[in-house]
Amino acid sequence: MTQWALLLEYDGTPFVGWQRQNNGLSVQQVLEAAAAKLNGGAPVASVVAGRTDAGVHAEAQVAHIALPDSSRMTPGKLRDALNYHMKPHPVVVLRTAEAPPGWSPRFSATLRRYRYRILDRRSRPALDLNRVWHVASAIDARAMHAAAQSLLGRHDFTSFRAAACQARSPLRTLDRLDVARDGDIVEIQAEARSFLHHQVRNMVGTLKLVGEGAWPASRVAAALAACDRAAAGPTAPASGLCLVGVRYPIDLFPRA
Amino acid sequence: MTQWALLLEYDGTPFVGWQRQNNGLSVQQVLEAAAAKLNGGAPVASVVAGRTDAGVHAEAQVAHIALPDSSRMTPGKLRDALNYHMKPHPVVVLRTAEAPPGWSPRFSATLRRYRYRILDRRSRPALDLNRVWHVASAIDARAMHAAAQSLLGRHDFTSFRAAACQARSPLRTLDRLDVARDGDIVEIQAEARSFLHHQVRNMVGTLKLVGEGAWPASRVAAALAACDRAAAGPTAPASGLCLVGVRYPIDLFPRA
Repeated sequence: MTQWALLLEYDGTPFVGWQRQNNGLSVQQVLEAAAAKLNGGAPVASVVAGRTDAGVHAEAQVAHIALPDSSRMTPGKLRDALNYHMKPHPVVVLRTAEAPPGWSPRFSATLRRYRYRILDRRSRPALDLNRVWHVASAIDARAMHAAAQSLLGRHDFTSFRAAACQARSPLRTLDRLDVARDGDIVEIQAEARSFLHHQVRNMVGTLKLVGEGAWPASRVAAALAACDRAAAGPTAPASGLCLVGVRYPIDLFPRA
Repeated sequence: MTQWALLLEYDGTPFVGWQRQNNGLSVQQVLEAAAAKLNGGAPVASVVAGRTDAGVHAEAQVAHIALPDSSRMTPGKLRDALNYHMKPHPVVVLRTAEAPPGWSPRFSATLRRYRYRILDRRSRPALDLNRVWHVASAIDARAMHAAAQSLLGRHDFTSFRAAACQARSPLRTLDRLDVARDGDIVEIQAEARSFLHHQVRNMVGTLKLVGEGAWPASRVAAALAACDRAAAGPTAPASGLCLVGVRYPIDLFPRA
């Protein structure tokens, strides 16, 4: 078998999320169906770096599949063949590489980067529909950034964890949580080795309360310390979230 | 009557273009239907700065409507009411202002700015579907930029003019035609007081021939000099084009 690493882009809008579910089409299902066509119809299982939720996008998701050596794939042929078979779904393979022995997209990742975009203006989005969270009231990005810094470091993130989260431990190390405004867009950059289920969206939903002045910045640290989901703010919508990068000890997809 | 200037954003994908047509829904129709609701159901006519084609987007289109003083609109109320009535179409009013006497969005404009985006990579677009022209072969943005400079200035642009163009004169003054790469995106910025029908898309389609090495840069100047549509390249797709600004002698929509 040849082990392949895949770099994927997708629009999460029409999907039930990365993972296969009974209630609709998943990105995983689209990828695995395309891979099966390259495997004589036999099923191909994939593993992924970040199991994004319904409506969450990816500019740079990383997945793993294995194909028999007999399929005689080159990196370029594999990319083109998967893209052909994934049509017309909004999922594409950007790059492919043979994966090193023992590599896992999920467990070998040393950093995951997410971007969250808020469209902060009175008018609803026309061009950025399904790509942003529309917040009609003016929010203070600087106040959000200041409050965000109290979440950095290693903490029990129970307050920002979905009830459905399957992680064994609520301990995570948050390396970056920057909030900055560019015109009507307020952009949040979050980086950690791994995140709990809904952690980024719950942090964003909480920071928005600070941004609109409903919460003092200090309440974010208090919410974290409470280790109680009810102490933090609501979950921000999926549409604003995008997985923008996954880091590994080696550069899997070096630019030619 | 109160004269109103409107700043509009729209996704051109589902429309037959700005202008009313019998074969489908236009942006003009959506705007005028919403405005009529604020005019007791009586028709309201709009005038626009740039009559964009089917599939062409706008981040900052400018339009004019007149409403009776009896409608007692404030700028904010007008924006919100139009946005309410234009739902769920991907068209929104970003800002409104009372227009000065004699002002026309079309004839008072001193500069129109268009942006054209090419996604230059092997894989088709997933996230930027309908927002870019996908060119799978590698193109040379620097060569395109160099060639583009030969189109600057006042010329007879017959070679880059659609057969259906209704302008009286093919003479136009092109002030800017910059081509630059940012990763997989090749972005073209075009500025002129006014453009002929399809002029930007025909210039982009021609420059792409230079970018892929099919044409030497010098052939662009020769195509211009020929004053013959057949001498220039094909029309680039609508999806990559966006009207990003219209300038007037006064700043109609100053930031609060």
